[in-house]
Amino acid sequence: MEGLKQKATGRCEYTSDIVLPGMLVAKALYPQHPRAKIKKLDVSAAETIPGVIAIVTHHDLPDKTHYGILVQDQQIFAIDEVCYIGDIVALVAAETEDIANQALKSIEVEYDPLPGIFDPVQAVESNKILARKDLESNLLSQSSFSFGDVDQGFSKADVTVKRKYQTQCMDHLFLETEGVVASWDGSTLVMYISGQDPHGDRNQVAAALGLPINQVRVIYPYVGGGFGGKEEMHVQIQTAVLAMKAKRPVKFIRTRQESLFTHIKRAGISVELETAAKADGTLLAIRAKIIGDSGPYSNIFPAVINCAAELVSGPYKIPNAQIDSYAVATNNLIGGGMRGFGGPEVAFAYEQNIDLLAEELGIDPLAFRLKNGMEKGTVMPSGTSIPSKIGFKETIHRAAEASGWDNRQNWLEREPEPGVFRGLGAATIWHGMGMGRGISDHSAAVVEMTPDGSILLSIGVTDMGQGAFTAQKIIVANELGVDPEDVIVNSIDTHLVPAAGPTSASSGTYRTGKAIIQAAGEIKQNLLAFAANVLEAPPEELILADKKVWVEGNSERFLELSKLAKQAWWMNIPLRAEGFSQLWHPDVDEDEFNIPHPHSIFAYAAHIAQVLVDTKTGKLTVEKIWAAHDVGKAINRQAVEGQIEGGVVQGLGYALLEELHQHQGKLLNKSLSTYLTPLAQDVPEIEPIIIEVPEPTGPYGAKGIGEPPLTP
Amino acid sequence: MEGLKQKATGRCEYTSDIVLPGMLVAKALYPQHPRAKIKKLDVSAAETIPGVIAIVTHHDLPDKTHYGILVQDQQIFAIDEVCYIGDIVALVAAETEDIANQALKSIEVEYDPLPGIFDPVQAVESNKILARKDLESNLLSQSSFSFGDVDQGFSKADVTVKRKYQTQCMDHLFLETEGVVASWDGSTLVMYISGQDPHGDRNQVAAALGLPINQVRVIYPYVGGGFGGKEEMHVQIQTAVLAMKAKRPVKFIRTRQESLFTHIKRAGISVELETAAKADGTLLAIRAKIIGDSGPYSNIFPAVINCAAELVSGPYKIPNAQIDSYAVATNNLIGGGMRGFGGPEVAFAYEQNIDLLAEELGIDPLAFRLKNGMEKGTVMPSGTSIPSKIGFKETIHRAAEASGWDNRQNWLEREPEPGVFRGLGAATIWHGMGMGRGISDHSAAVVEMTPDGSILLSIGVTDMGQGAFTAQKIIVANELGVDPEDVIVNSIDTHLVPAAGPTSASSGTYRTGKAIIQAAGEIKQNLLAFAANVLEAPPEELILADKKVWVEGNSERFLELSKLAKQAWWMNIPLRAEGFSQLWHPDVDEDEFNIPHPHSIFAYAAHIAQVLVDTKTGKLTVEKIWAAHDVGKAINRQAVEGQIEGGVVQGLGYALLEELHQHQGKLLNKSLSTYLTPLAQDVPEIEPIIIEVPEPTGPYGAKGIGEPPLTP
Repeated sequence: MEGLKQKATGRCEYTSDIVLPGMLVAKALYPQHPRAKIKKLDVSAAETIPGVIAIVTHHDLPDKTHYGILVQDQQIFAIDEVCYIGDIVALVAAETEDIANQALKSIEVEYDPLPGIFDPVQAVESNKILARKDLESNLLSQSSFSFGDVDQGFSKADVTVKRKYQTQCMDHLFLETEGVVASWDGSTLVMYISGQDPHGDRNQVAAALGLPINQVRVIYPYVGGGFGGKEEMHVQIQTAVLAMKAKRPVKFIRTRQESLFTHIKRAGISVELETAAKADGTLLAIRAKIIGDSGPYSNIFPAVINCAAELVSGPYKIPNAQIDSYAVATNNLIGGGMRGFGGPEVAFAYEQNIDLLAEELGIDPLAFRLKNGMEKGTVMPSGTSIPSKIGFKETIHRAAEASGWDNRQNWLEREPEPGVFRGLGAATIWHGMGMGRGISDHSAAVVEMTPDGSILLSIGVTDMGQGAFTAQKIIVANELGVDPEDVIVNSIDTHLVPAAGPTSASSGTYRTGKAIIQAAGEIKQNLLAFAANVLEAPPEELILADKKVWVEGNSERFLELSKLAKQAWWMNIPLRAEGFSQLWHPDVDEDEFNIPHPHSIFAYAAHIAQVLVDTKTGKLTVEKIWAAHDVGKAINRQAVEGQIEGGVVQGLGYALLEELHQHQGKLLNKSLSTYLTPLAQDVPEIEPIIIEVPEPTGPYGAKGIGEPPLTP
Repeated sequence: MEGLKQKATGRCEYTSDIVLPGMLVAKALYPQHPRAKIKKLDVSAAETIPGVIAIVTHHDLPDKTHYGILVQDQQIFAIDEVCYIGDIVALVAAETEDIANQALKSIEVEYDPLPGIFDPVQAVESNKILARKDLESNLLSQSSFSFGDVDQGFSKADVTVKRKYQTQCMDHLFLETEGVVASWDGSTLVMYISGQDPHGDRNQVAAALGLPINQVRVIYPYVGGGFGGKEEMHVQIQTAVLAMKAKRPVKFIRTRQESLFTHIKRAGISVELETAAKADGTLLAIRAKIIGDSGPYSNIFPAVINCAAELVSGPYKIPNAQIDSYAVATNNLIGGGMRGFGGPEVAFAYEQNIDLLAEELGIDPLAFRLKNGMEKGTVMPSGTSIPSKIGFKETIHRAAEASGWDNRQNWLEREPEPGVFRGLGAATIWHGMGMGRGISDHSAAVVEMTPDGSILLSIGVTDMGQGAFTAQKIIVANELGVDPEDVIVNSIDTHLVPAAGPTSASSGTYRTGKAIIQAAGEIKQNLLAFAANVLEAPPEELILADKKVWVEGNSERFLELSKLAKQAWWMNIPLRAEGFSQLWHPDVDEDEFNIPHPHSIFAYAAHIAQVLVDTKTGKLTVEKIWAAHDVGKAINRQAVEGQIEGGVVQGLGYALLEELHQHQGKLLNKSLSTYLTPLAQDVPEIEPIIIEVPEPTGPYGAKGIGEPPLTP
């Protein structure tokens, strides 16, 4: 039920396409104030409107009040206070959208506005105004760690740069907004969800509602983008509660406007970064202070800040570091995960400091980075080290070469018109693959060769458009000697497919690829052992290719896979197997690390941008981007290039256009007419450069490519 | 999505409950003659009727013409001749049933009636009239084998009995008639089927239509009975062809009338049986000739006859045997598998011969059976032997004891009224478990412990009402220390659940139980190894019970399963596993057997019936039945008793009431007003007696109970 053809012809079913018999429409009531006490909430008048089937508020869940992926601190429904403009006060199920909207207007709710806290820095410094009444401090998480001897590092410096950087709030802008269809038959809750983590959704919905996990069945239709924004719950729990009360299926699809003001964002982060170097360009030390705006709830944001703290030293050898980080509660929009997960925010800081140092020391910016670049054996401030060969420096060399960097004075027309200037800029970054040590990071895959040799693959990883299914098909085909077209990837159903974790942290292909290879390997072994009897040759002399089992070196002796698989079926030879994998982490003691959940495997990238600036108008045109990435191994080269191109464009939006403007907790630009994002005409020429330094623990040496291209 | 509660409250979805958007109704055109040439077939007028969306005939499948589970000799659509009254000439898809029926009437079809063959004995003896034009002989299968020295055996006999027995044609009479909903999206054929063999359906549909197997997805809603009648295709292929042509989903549910005249039956079988014994009652030899009426197509009937030939010697030590068997083609209704698969037909013969011999020799019929009863080491005419202790003789002892057999002269009021006589009758039988050696007989099961300790089980075996799901839950619960209610059995979907073979041959629990135990064992091992770390005790000292992991002998040291499972999730410990099993067969050479596919494991039973016969009216009343069964182990005692009771009632119907009356290939009783079956008032008191002599290769020692209770 998957296939690019289906997608191209518009026949793919997304959550909003799901229609169940008797299905109702849900609409949510949001507060008029970012911070207020609820004085009165009365839905009785609304309930009497013909066509209104059920209304749920916090009264319907007296015992179950909060949820959260890390900490259960987010209100399912607003209880007696609202903490941001996206809290859900009530949810209505009605026969039609019009009736539901009418019901929303008939809900009587009175607020007592309270002062809110909207400045994260102020939230760190003072707890006079708390973002929620159940908080004692606005600090949701805090961490300080040092590595080496920072004071000594700075004392030896010939030059230091200290700057404060502030990033803005950004939306994921997935094409498909958040949506859920929930249905309850009295024993099983079936949910169709646009999400990124089917089994995580299942586990959280069950926990929030107090249902056994095996009574929650999550089905993922096609998903129209996630970018980290659908890793945490959106309206799953509320829609489920409503369906259970209504005793009919309920569909809740967020409008674009709702999506913009309710759901998690890439939050604003401020980074105060001081970097020290010797005169020859050797980096000596950093001091960093990171403050991130979590909005009122934790969501996954403390993990984002933890990741930012891990990455703020950049892909460089930094022998001494002091890193302080804070996730603070405010009454702004909620901060959460988004492509890069704290990485782009800190890269904005560390790369500018590097450029400033290089400029001050008169060293070429790329030469400066090469001098300090990480390599095998580098110990990171987190306390872990790089265990094997990496391709970081090669990304710099290859991007420089492709762009003509060294020679740019000769070919680059610097000032094509008076007041208009052209230049090249470079940035190099790193990004951790997977969740980090000690966090659930496993995947399983079921591969089945049917009796005609065609293949079914069941795996719980979401394809949000990134091409996971295609990469998986390629891996199966490679292992079992068939064509990728012979493999069908089953749609996701948590009752049936094994968990493969969230599609996040750029580790989908790494984890699932390993699981697939293991499962396919078991099938291959059974198949070859069986074929060995028939062909009268030892299994180790047999190869699987071109839908045949061959005796190696003998083009006459082979068996058609289709016939062999059928025989195997009749002879009770198992041709279905399940593989399990987890992201590799070095087997060292937790105590040796300076931060929780450090990463072990990193992707590296170097981008060079050719940019035109009109100093008269301020107009900025990105003309071309060379994007070199160390991906370990590109299993599906076209998809890797697609990820690079998409990431570059989304990164351009982040760097140049996109910002959710908030004022006192209210969102000022609630639509795509005021939230600007790159259009086709804004996209420069992009030249992806793929570097394959194999990661020894990855499938065929692959690492990941989902997040890194946005960052530089 | 399963549960007795759902069933009891009428909320279970059967195939006829499936509604898909745009779904059409299908109706079939059947021939007016059992044997005729089709002179003309024109659907063009019917196609023009408004609301008729598609009509399919053999013209729509020029290359794919036949199908069949053993031999592909059955016409998908009648080509240029019809061979029995259930052949499908055309299939119409229309917006409503009325329009479809109107279309059937508008199809122009002209027949040239041909002489048919309707007597199976005549069909063996002469090929002058052939049942199909593509046959050279009416013999679809034939087998002759001998064991020991038959002539010598008979020459030593003090007494011989020779009789000819004829059984009638019987319907399965499942409550839910055959039905299919098919839907084609251009890449995947999704089929909802009322069947008994989801993966078999998938494989056959794909083969018949020339689709790769992984493009056919078979989903089984609840199934309202099968009894062997849904093991082979019914309308799957035709409905699929129609849906593909109509480009809309199509539903085809057979009416009861259609079901009675189209689908496979328990065919009439004649058994000529000669049995020889010594004066002391020792059985010496048998000669048997079995002729079965297959109707025009093979279906699974040659396998039924093979099974009949294997079983015709009865559960006795028979040192010499000559057994000839024939499956013949006629133009009657099609013969196929039905509960007992040839066993009841031959038991009718062998048990009457035994009674006649016992009577002639003046030996008590049960003493006669005990004297000759099989036991460990008995070599059967098939050439295989009984490898371990069996409970056959115990079934006789226990049934005799319960019924007061030995003492019956004292308590049984023999002639309550003048001309009305009461008596006890006994029958003892055996039945092979599974498909027989060399036939696909595997099963796989996926067990998943979710992060709260609740459990999902995926297995491709159909619960047709026999309680397979409950037995499976009990096994999982037993292995993993939870309650059966904590286990949810997933509904069947061939894209996702592993194949577990057809639900037939009384081996569902045997095969699936073993697979479940293997899968659960893997989970248990991982769980205990993980718990051992936490509890600081060696895994071998840990036990799983009451949803906890306990240190054995210490009631203070335990971990809640719900917490442990959650921790395991976060620590990447796999708690999902797949088990594979196959029915056990002794590891000896094929050449040592006298028949193809002999069985290795058998169930045994002894029934005693108390019967009242009114010699004035012929009225026969069965007052009570004691039913003793060696089941190996009753995993779900209530369900085993239910199977015994249901089997007894269906057996009573077979013995006393049920018969499809055919005349010259036409069915005379096409409705339940003329096809008589036992009603509640006809059911006698039934006393199930369960004997548990463990089968060493079965799960907990279990064998099977699906078929044996019908036979005696």
